Amino acid sequence: MTDGSRLNRRGLILGAGAGLAASVLSPQALAQAAGRKIGYAIVGLGSYATRQIMPQFVNSERSRLTALVSGSPEKARTLAAQYGIPERSIYSYQTFDRIADNPDVDVVYVILPNSMHAEYSIRAAKAGKHVMCEKPMAPTVRECEQMIAACRQANRKLMIGYRSRFQAHNVEAIRMARGGEMGPTRVILAEHGFNIGDPTQWRLKRSLAGGGALMDIGIYSLNATRYLTGEEPIEVTAIEKTDRSDIRFREVDDTILFALKFPSGAVANCVSSYTSNHNRYRVVQQNGWFELEPATAYTGQQMRVAPRGQPAQPREIALGKNQFAGQLDHMAECILTNREPIVSGEEGLRDVRVMEAIYRSVRESRAVKLT
Amino acid sequence: MTDGSRLNRRGLILGAGAGLAASVLSPQALAQAAGRKIGYAIVGLGSYATRQIMPQFVNSERSRLTALVSGSPEKARTLAAQYGIPERSIYSYQTFDRIADNPDVDVVYVILPNSMHAEYSIRAAKAGKHVMCEKPMAPTVRECEQMIAACRQANRKLMIGYRSRFQAHNVEAIRMARGGEMGPTRVILAEHGFNIGDPTQWRLKRSLAGGGALMDIGIYSLNATRYLTGEEPIEVTAIEKTDRSDIRFREVDDTILFALKFPSGAVANCVSSYTSNHNRYRVVQQNGWFELEPATAYTGQQMRVAPRGQPAQPREIALGKNQFAGQLDHMAECILTNREPIVSGEEGLRDVRVMEAIYRSVRESRAVKLT
Repeated sequence: MTDGSRLNRRGLILGAGAGLAASVLSPQALAQAAGRKIGYAIVGLGSYATRQIMPQFVNSERSRLTALVSGSPEKARTLAAQYGIPERSIYSYQTFDRIADNPDVDVVYVILPNSMHAEYSIRAAKAGKHVMCEKPMAPTVRECEQMIAACRQANRKLMIGYRSRFQAHNVEAIRMARGGEMGPTRVILAEHGFNIGDPTQWRLKRSLAGGGALMDIGIYSLNATRYLTGEEPIEVTAIEKTDRSDIRFREVDDTILFALKFPSGAVANCVSSYTSNHNRYRVVQQNGWFELEPATAYTGQQMRVAPRGQPAQPREIALGKNQFAGQLDHMAECILTNREPIVSGEEGLRDVRVMEAIYRSVRESRAVKLT
Repeated sequence: MTDGSRLNRRGLILGAGAGLAASVLSPQALAQAAGRKIGYAIVGLGSYATRQIMPQFVNSERSRLTALVSGSPEKARTLAAQYGIPERSIYSYQTFDRIADNPDVDVVYVILPNSMHAEYSIRAAKAGKHVMCEKPMAPTVRECEQMIAACRQANRKLMIGYRSRFQAHNVEAIRMARGGEMGPTRVILAEHGFNIGDPTQWRLKRSLAGGGALMDIGIYSLNATRYLTGEEPIEVTAIEKTDRSDIRFREVDDTILFALKFPSGAVANCVSSYTSNHNRYRVVQQNGWFELEPATAYTGQQMRVAPRGQPAQPREIALGKNQFAGQLDHMAECILTNREPIVSGEEGLRDVRVMEAIYRSVRESRAVKLT
């Protein structure tokens, strides 16, 4: 593991990774790096990039938007004007590799369809840039490994866009879950899904998405079980319901229910869906439970806490820095202080490995062990 | 099926079974039967019988407590005095069959450890009595079939103690689920569990309980998915976590996560546990969800409803008759008007059949198809 933490024999992640990203940096380190902002190039100007990520640079402290990469010159030019990016820092997919010569770009942030993550992450590393890549890291374990190898070889950092790790309610939930707020964790329930629209979008094409709901939204359920336990699952079983006569699901999975066993004895029951609305997790500990709903939305997280025998009560959590800005700044701080991101390439690979096992469990109608 | 409903080709249960039990009876039928109360013998004077069932005869309209069967003469005598039951209507397990000669007893209500359900139900039928039996109906499908055959041969009614079918929030949830209140049902989440105490109790002995948490509390999750959909599952997959070094779980299952597929395309993700506290179900439909928590407790049910895009809101449900009294009266009314109980022996058998498949799925680490 390269994320500054380590696994003990029961598979529990130890170290700083569990805490708030900001707390990883010492005051000295921050002082050394004072004033410097890390420059980001955004690759892929879809709605997640333009509506969620780019507007958050203003709320970041260590990050600035310095370049754009797009297949649409007009869209790039309009956004560049809006964000004050010079013409020379606009790239197409053909001219992308020239980004190597742009000193304003420290990080390339890949927000492309999943099947393109590996190619652009590797090209970015070869161009000497640090890499931020959206989740899922890539459709296959093999590609994830190639991405990690490329960044390691180029001595560049690699971070996966697990924004919830920088969202205050989730950070608090991790503390409560791993800290045993109400005793050891027994059962985690994690459900994510939405009713997907436009049947022509890339998310519904296997060649671009690599998979369906599991890759896109179910990964939030899976990742939550892993960050809440701080453990790696040892066994998975899954069942799929996909209506192949629905034009949206000719190529990819709709609903998958999957269950996970963890080394500590905790288990998780999860939902991934492109037809059913879910955004929640509950952590059931020995002496009560707590829940986030919504859990991983862009905004609006709510926590309820129910000590055993008492009715559930809302618990207010101070919001702190916006999760998208927090994510950008975490990578910036890791670069400035030469630390490993808490959501490294290895972290992204682990989710992809479990997702491959989930698909195998569905395909072979059997439980799959993970080692 | 003998419960007055029938399955259509997609496995949906049609007919009156979905509604409030009381509504099954026409005013004419009730008038015909006016004044008559059905007499119950309680077999087994454990805490469920003495604390939940027996105190509810006062809230029933068609049922009265007329006999007791117990291995403890002293306990029986104390309770008989309390409930005004004559000495001649107290039986031991040895004298039980003489109940045939007691005209005050119409129904024998079996509230014994699971492994004794079949024997006492069959002896009751042979004694010419109608049979109410606690859930799980019996540890095996074979015993359930024997119970059904015995009651059929004796021309006696057989009802399983699924009290939630007479609980107002659950009745309303069934209406909302089957009626498509917010569109077709996509996903059901159902979780039941508690942290079991006394390691010497019969529930933890395989020879008496037949199984562990699944038989005792997980059955509520399973039964809920069936009564909410009105369908029979066609496939099940399950995973178990039982700490065999915990003295409570030398013989029986602790936590089982199981997933079900239904013919309509609905799926269910369920929890059964003897170490983790749960009492909830959520029905996620196309345009929103509703939830009961607690769902199947003795009292205190709460409903929340969340149309898509809106925050969850509590919904008040008028309580109506106590669920235990409603259950007693349903059987009484079925006898008085010669109807089949909505929770017949066949209904009990179907749960046991699925539970056998769940255990098989755990044992063989594979999905099990049900036909």
